[in-house]
Amino acid sequence: MGSIRLLTIRGIPIRIHFTFPLILIWAAFQYGQGQANWAKGALFGVTFTLLLFVGVLLHELAHSLIALQFGARVREIVLFPLGGVAQMESLPERPWQELLMALAGPITSAVVGVALGIVTLLLFPLRLWVDFFHALGTGLGLQWTFLLPYLAFTNLLLAGFNLIPAFPMDGGRVLRALLATAMPYGRATAIAVAVGQGLAWLLGLVGLLGGDVVLILVAFLVYAGATQEGRMVQVKLALAGLQVDQVFSRGARAVSSTDTLGTAVDMMLEGFQADFPVCEEGRLIGLVTRADLLRGLKEYGPQAPIGQVMRRQFPTVTPQDDLFEVRERMANAGLEALPVVEEGRFLGLLTQQDLNEAYALVSVRPSLLRPRV
Amino acid sequence: MGSIRLLTIRGIPIRIHFTFPLILIWAAFQYGQGQANWAKGALFGVTFTLLLFVGVLLHELAHSLIALQFGARVREIVLFPLGGVAQMESLPERPWQELLMALAGPITSAVVGVALGIVTLLLFPLRLWVDFFHALGTGLGLQWTFLLPYLAFTNLLLAGFNLIPAFPMDGGRVLRALLATAMPYGRATAIAVAVGQGLAWLLGLVGLLGGDVVLILVAFLVYAGATQEGRMVQVKLALAGLQVDQVFSRGARAVSSTDTLGTAVDMMLEGFQADFPVCEEGRLIGLVTRADLLRGLKEYGPQAPIGQVMRRQFPTVTPQDDLFEVRERMANAGLEALPVVEEGRFLGLLTQQDLNEAYALVSVRPSLLRPRV
Repeated sequence: MGSIRLLTIRGIPIRIHFTFPLILIWAAFQYGQGQANWAKGALFGVTFTLLLFVGVLLHELAHSLIALQFGARVREIVLFPLGGVAQMESLPERPWQELLMALAGPITSAVVGVALGIVTLLLFPLRLWVDFFHALGTGLGLQWTFLLPYLAFTNLLLAGFNLIPAFPMDGGRVLRALLATAMPYGRATAIAVAVGQGLAWLLGLVGLLGGDVVLILVAFLVYAGATQEGRMVQVKLALAGLQVDQVFSRGARAVSSTDTLGTAVDMMLEGFQADFPVCEEGRLIGLVTRADLLRGLKEYGPQAPIGQVMRRQFPTVTPQDDLFEVRERMANAGLEALPVVEEGRFLGLLTQQDLNEAYALVSVRPSLLRPRV
Repeated sequence: MGSIRLLTIRGIPIRIHFTFPLILIWAAFQYGQGQANWAKGALFGVTFTLLLFVGVLLHELAHSLIALQFGARVREIVLFPLGGVAQMESLPERPWQELLMALAGPITSAVVGVALGIVTLLLFPLRLWVDFFHALGTGLGLQWTFLLPYLAFTNLLLAGFNLIPAFPMDGGRVLRALLATAMPYGRATAIAVAVGQGLAWLLGLVGLLGGDVVLILVAFLVYAGATQEGRMVQVKLALAGLQVDQVFSRGARAVSSTDTLGTAVDMMLEGFQADFPVCEEGRLIGLVTRADLLRGLKEYGPQAPIGQVMRRQFPTVTPQDDLFEVRERMANAGLEALPVVEEGRFLGLLTQQDLNEAYALVSVRPSLLRPRV
């Protein structure tokens, strides 16, 4: 959403977020300001930024290709003004696989940085590096002659920054994977999360005392990233071993494809159900989500038959499926509810709320929902 | 939550958020740094900040006392590191009342600023002001002699900043109230929101081009504040004129006070309902929310009777109640569902989801839920 596809590499769509041009505008102004030739400085800034983002793309591609190698799925890579994100649909399962995947990004950036550094040494006298660091210190005169050392330097920075041992940086995953070789995954995550949160507090304190707003912002992001990862793993582990038939909503009502949208609206208002399976003689033939219903009402009005707006392609689950695995299936499908089916017969719905309830119940009293072995 | 009560004024609790000391630590460092006597500078910073927050409190109290005057309710005033917030449970109804309420804050700050300025003129030679602005410009030497002019100056800034015509600043309310005297409230809000969003884009652009991160952050907050206010008024206006009996969940199941918590858990898992009314012979005697249930399970286990954890004090609604008004009642009670009762008989539940559905339906097709006149 809000991004356009640039190209596809090994089946992975590379997309650019619509806010991406902001970083180019910023770079043009930042590098144009105070230069003798404004336009020349701006052009340098834009060129440098675009080349830097080639480095960011290589970094994310490295994560993704290793993930593919280990059988994980990669949905897309999106470039934002502040960096790139590789959206994974599933992660590699073993700690050493996650370790290699996480390390692939920083290693790639480091290799790119070192390679560009060597090329610089071959093409220019050593003196260029001295001049470059001088220009970097004063912030002025970062011009075409310094393009290669500047790219080498920033790619090395990219490698180093991402090795900070805190989620959402790669270093957080590296730390967790290393810990997970010696202890259970949940405990490894908890420790990595605590390290990340502690680091965030430290960064925040330094930022607060120095009056550095950017550092405070980074601290907030690191804290939020660490906390979110911790909670996600907690939910995953709590649901693992639980089965769909322990929590799914058996009382779910189905509609027929010849019912009108108005009927579904009445059912939605009268009860608590928002997504409706479409059945014919007890067999599931479609699904109408709340969003489908609203879209259909807008386009065709309440008299239209449900068959006109229902979706025919959607994942289903069986009563024996594992909740941990089903949670990912639901998230990847972008749905709030999946029909539960056994031998073609419709049994009920498994909703996002059922998953939340299962997690909440297990959290307060694990014995309420004993894992079925 | 996360704040402690300091005192109560005219029935309004004045609270301090637990993060508030951060601003004092920041002030100590900010004003201590680079001073000949570090401790003296830090003490000045902390004293100045505390006195400035007395000004912030007077500003919020002015809003609150005018609101009380017009029959609105004020829940509390909370002081955060970046300012104060007066939490209103309802707003004055007429545009001119909202105008006076919104203006009361900036006017109070302006009066405090001018008064402190006059006192400064009476106590010190005019020359002090010249020296003060010089010290302000260099950021050094802001010391005890400058305490009065500094407070006068910052209170005037507080007045001016809050008159910026964009939500969430007071000026946004002022603009909306002025517009609402000449056009419907919804349209006045839409225009004030658009002005706020436009201003945010402008601030953001200036921040981006100048590389000023603080300005970019302020722009984000202004944009989010304006958008949120616009959406809230949209929801309010869409629900006004609709009645509880058009959307409430008649199919809600009730439990008995002698049922066990385990029974309620089974009902929660089997169906879509998360909050349960407790009834005796069709009459409502209590309410068990999802949170009550989880708390009860944790403390007493699944064998405990529902009567032990149910709440006996909670608001109810009737089928004829207006959804606009009921929405506020639900939010103020901090509940996700309110029982619908007529002549003591329990009829069903009105849930947060029902309100969301009503808003969604009216948004796509107003004729689906015609206001009952």
